[in-house]
Amino acid sequence: MELDFIAARLEGLEETIIHKLIDRAQFRVNSIVYIPGQSGFEGSKGKSLLEIRLYYQEEMDAQFGRYRQPEERPFNGDLPLPKRIVQIPDTGLAIDDYNKVNLTGEILTSYIGLVPGICLPGDDRQHGSSVVADVYALQAIAERIHFGSLYVAECKFRDNPDKYIKLIHSKDEEGIIAGLTRKDVEDLIIKRVADKVAYIQTRVNTKVRNVIDPEVILTYYRDYIIPFTKKGELRYLLNRIIETPLPDKRYPPHR
Amino acid sequence: MELDFIAARLEGLEETIIHKLIDRAQFRVNSIVYIPGQSGFEGSKGKSLLEIRLYYQEEMDAQFGRYRQPEERPFNGDLPLPKRIVQIPDTGLAIDDYNKVNLTGEILTSYIGLVPGICLPGDDRQHGSSVVADVYALQAIAERIHFGSLYVAECKFRDNPDKYIKLIHSKDEEGIIAGLTRKDVEDLIIKRVADKVAYIQTRVNTKVRNVIDPEVILTYYRDYIIPFTKKGELRYLLNRIIETPLPDKRYPPHR
Repeated sequence: MELDFIAARLEGLEETIIHKLIDRAQFRVNSIVYIPGQSGFEGSKGKSLLEIRLYYQEEMDAQFGRYRQPEERPFNGDLPLPKRIVQIPDTGLAIDDYNKVNLTGEILTSYIGLVPGICLPGDDRQHGSSVVADVYALQAIAERIHFGSLYVAECKFRDNPDKYIKLIHSKDEEGIIAGLTRKDVEDLIIKRVADKVAYIQTRVNTKVRNVIDPEVILTYYRDYIIPFTKKGELRYLLNRIIETPLPDKRYPPHR
Repeated sequence: MELDFIAARLEGLEETIIHKLIDRAQFRVNSIVYIPGQSGFEGSKGKSLLEIRLYYQEEMDAQFGRYRQPEERPFNGDLPLPKRIVQIPDTGLAIDDYNKVNLTGEILTSYIGLVPGICLPGDDRQHGSSVVADVYALQAIAERIHFGSLYVAECKFRDNPDKYIKLIHSKDEEGIIAGLTRKDVEDLIIKRVADKVAYIQTRVNTKVRNVIDPEVILTYYRDYIIPFTKKGELRYLLNRIIETPLPDKRYPPHR
């Protein structure tokens, strides 16, 4: 539970997010995949193709134990139990249900808004491949946001428990957000992300690959990923077990 | 069916393969995931965790129609039918069953041999995440090999049908391979891939990300991806329908 380690992990997740977004950008916007009732998928009326794919993916992932990891929060609620035992080392977190910090609803909405910014307009009929790429991008973004939400908040709490206990007890949301905000760090992150987006794509053959504008990713980080992470940190702190911090392993096992 | 277009598509798939291998390299070798009977997964005795994950993934993908695409060949045989209609434009290919060109067996073996070359040794207990990354890397590698196998071979056939019809009828495998081989192009590809592996990783924070040696990927391309593609081209040509090239849409729909 060291802020340096957590920041480094968040930095590592940037690469993953960028790679997944570049993968999605190789297909057109294909907006029909986001429209409920237009999936053409047997037995799934009223859902979009993305919603269906996301459910199938999470149903599989749940059986492999993915959602036992604190930072892996599902977009769906009704998922099966794991079919294997996943050993989670002591996380150091103090919350009785990780889904109290689940921002997948707003992540999904913000992501669908991002797609026209990274993909060429129109429809290339590659609907299946598009939603596969969507799901991987969404999972990478959600992992980054939830990892930051949980561990940055816990870390900051430990650095100054008296201050945060007081803020939490008085439900001072603005005070908590102020305590969590470091504008200089945020500026550094969005600059670094934009640089990476540009750099990774420098040697790409633009005849065969669509290239993402770094500014679009910078804006998405600034307007969604960072604010959602802070919202998640706030939610973690408001739900943190303060009186008797139970050891993590006593928490009920859930998906 | 232009060789330039096909080569460009193959070049684009390089980026995808490299990104997926970099993702896998963030975990340790975790060799237990490749050992049959050691998965700890309910109801799947005698299989490795990778085999189980690969089956679940392909079962899902099959329902979304992935294997209607000629270049998407599954690693498993007993998969469900699609639950949606996938419109495949006329491919121009002349083969009655795409699985006559399915090299997934040797791809899987070669890939498991590659893992210790890109990952740090040991076990980090991230078994679930490792096999997820394995599956995505395998799918990207297989797509490249099967795309090349089918389309490069068909393209070369069309450029010189008399020559290939003669070679096919006399089952002259060595003559076919000689016709398909262009050493200068192969050298260019492996050099370009190694450059990309180095370049993509240049600005990575090596404290948090494991970096892949470009030479390892160069060797894998040279010794496996390119030879497997040529083997697939040979298999395509030996199975090509020569007498009456049926239009693709009359082929039986399969997974």
